[in-house]
Amino acid sequence: MGSSEAGQGGAPRESPTNPPARPQRTFKLTLAYDGGAYAGWQYQPGCATVQETLEQALARITGAVVRVAASGRTDAGVHALGQVVSFTSDCPLPAEVLQRALNAELPRDMAVRSLEEARPGFHAIRHAVRKRYRYVLRDGRVPHVFERHYAWQVRERLDVEAMQRAAQVLVGRHDFSSFETSGSERQSSVRTIEEITLRRSADDSQRIVLEVAADGFLYNMVRTIVGSLVEIGRGARDEAWLAAVLEARERRAAGQTAPPQGLFLVHVDYKENAEC
Amino acid sequence: MGSSEAGQGGAPRESPTNPPARPQRTFKLTLAYDGGAYAGWQYQPGCATVQETLEQALARITGAVVRVAASGRTDAGVHALGQVVSFTSDCPLPAEVLQRALNAELPRDMAVRSLEEARPGFHAIRHAVRKRYRYVLRDGRVPHVFERHYAWQVRERLDVEAMQRAAQVLVGRHDFSSFETSGSERQSSVRTIEEITLRRSADDSQRIVLEVAADGFLYNMVRTIVGSLVEIGRGARDEAWLAAVLEARERRAAGQTAPPQGLFLVHVDYKENAEC
Repeated sequence: MGSSEAGQGGAPRESPTNPPARPQRTFKLTLAYDGGAYAGWQYQPGCATVQETLEQALARITGAVVRVAASGRTDAGVHALGQVVSFTSDCPLPAEVLQRALNAELPRDMAVRSLEEARPGFHAIRHAVRKRYRYVLRDGRVPHVFERHYAWQVRERLDVEAMQRAAQVLVGRHDFSSFETSGSERQSSVRTIEEITLRRSADDSQRIVLEVAADGFLYNMVRTIVGSLVEIGRGARDEAWLAAVLEARERRAAGQTAPPQGLFLVHVDYKENAEC
Repeated sequence: MGSSEAGQGGAPRESPTNPPARPQRTFKLTLAYDGGAYAGWQYQPGCATVQETLEQALARITGAVVRVAASGRTDAGVHALGQVVSFTSDCPLPAEVLQRALNAELPRDMAVRSLEEARPGFHAIRHAVRKRYRYVLRDGRVPHVFERHYAWQVRERLDVEAMQRAAQVLVGRHDFSSFETSGSERQSSVRTIEEITLRRSADDSQRIVLEVAADGFLYNMVRTIVGSLVEIGRGARDEAWLAAVLEARERRAAGQTAPPQGLFLVHVDYKENAEC
């Protein structure tokens, strides 16, 4: 009787068939992917997504369900050079072994560039302090075969110097409602752009690269900025127009949303004390 | 009677329903293509080839069958930045209009970079005097997502300086039988390599670019040279081995044939007097 009561009411006792629980570990993973074949980062039933593909590879390796969080949800067709992902797992593999196993499991349009154990509680969304995006434009009448999936081809010659000058009005802390596709659930449209640059590539005169760093981005914000700057670059709007767009605080004031295939999430920075 | 005899035996007379024949024009076309979706340049029944795709686009535009000749037949999966193609047509369109029409007709993995009328008799194979190929290698354990279709990923770190030194034995006029896949119909295996260089990219330390210029190339010659140099780069062979391979004059002496997706036909030069 005494032993029976202890067995029912107390903590479950370990038995030879129940090994002791392994400690949970937190990981920080940096991922590159070609977004062309995916319906974006976030899980969607019936669609291939980057999140699901990564989680399935982790499940095959660890033998357990793993849920991952990314620094931001890239849209369908958007690429990443340095998406940052956090997850916890009791997987006992050394990080470098887990990285190699993932790269062997993942399709060739995804690659784990680095994987390290992070401090407990590290979270790729909550602790991000700065993100950097790149957008690749091409101008000229002859389409570029090898960047067709990685750039927006604009037929008119673009005035990159005018675009660069105009873009500087966006630097600083502003309400970017004009550059946010509606339907977003975010509470505030205020973000701080630290830097935005546009330049032609030194070795390819029809290739234009925009880079922008901010503490965060609204839904479709980079693509709407690019679509608006292209209006200036092709001469349909003057440089001062962008200040009026920013001031308007409504999406219809801005230009079109640039297509997804030119956009790359390049890098995410974290607070020093939030990293491992 | 008289008019009937003239009608039967003489030159065909023009009638209102038979417009006068337009003069034949000779064109020189420079073509870029991503070879990934094609079974090579040359026409093959039942396969998509670059030649057939180009000829079909020309037929749709000109309303007539057009046969094209390329400077060389690239293999399945091999790319071109500057393949040169010649053809004749009585199409009356200005060359720049024909170029734009072709780029509108062609799939997005092919693009006409330039098109000009050439002197009568110009032929892209017979008048070529120099070709330049590029081969892109990557080393390192993390696969590169965006060059997966455009480079050969080698896991071992490659000693590019040793490869560069070893490759210089190939410069000059030699019998390159050791680097020729058998089954070729060429009468001579003697070619002259003018230059061969390997270097790491300044902005991407895992990217290695080989460039080679010669008066002509044997079947699979660049890919067999690359496969052999990689043996030296990974330390499986010493630098002097390549001279012994060249001397052997048999294919089995050399290394493996490197995969097609790293190879690009970059440029073709023509005799001054053979160009338009």
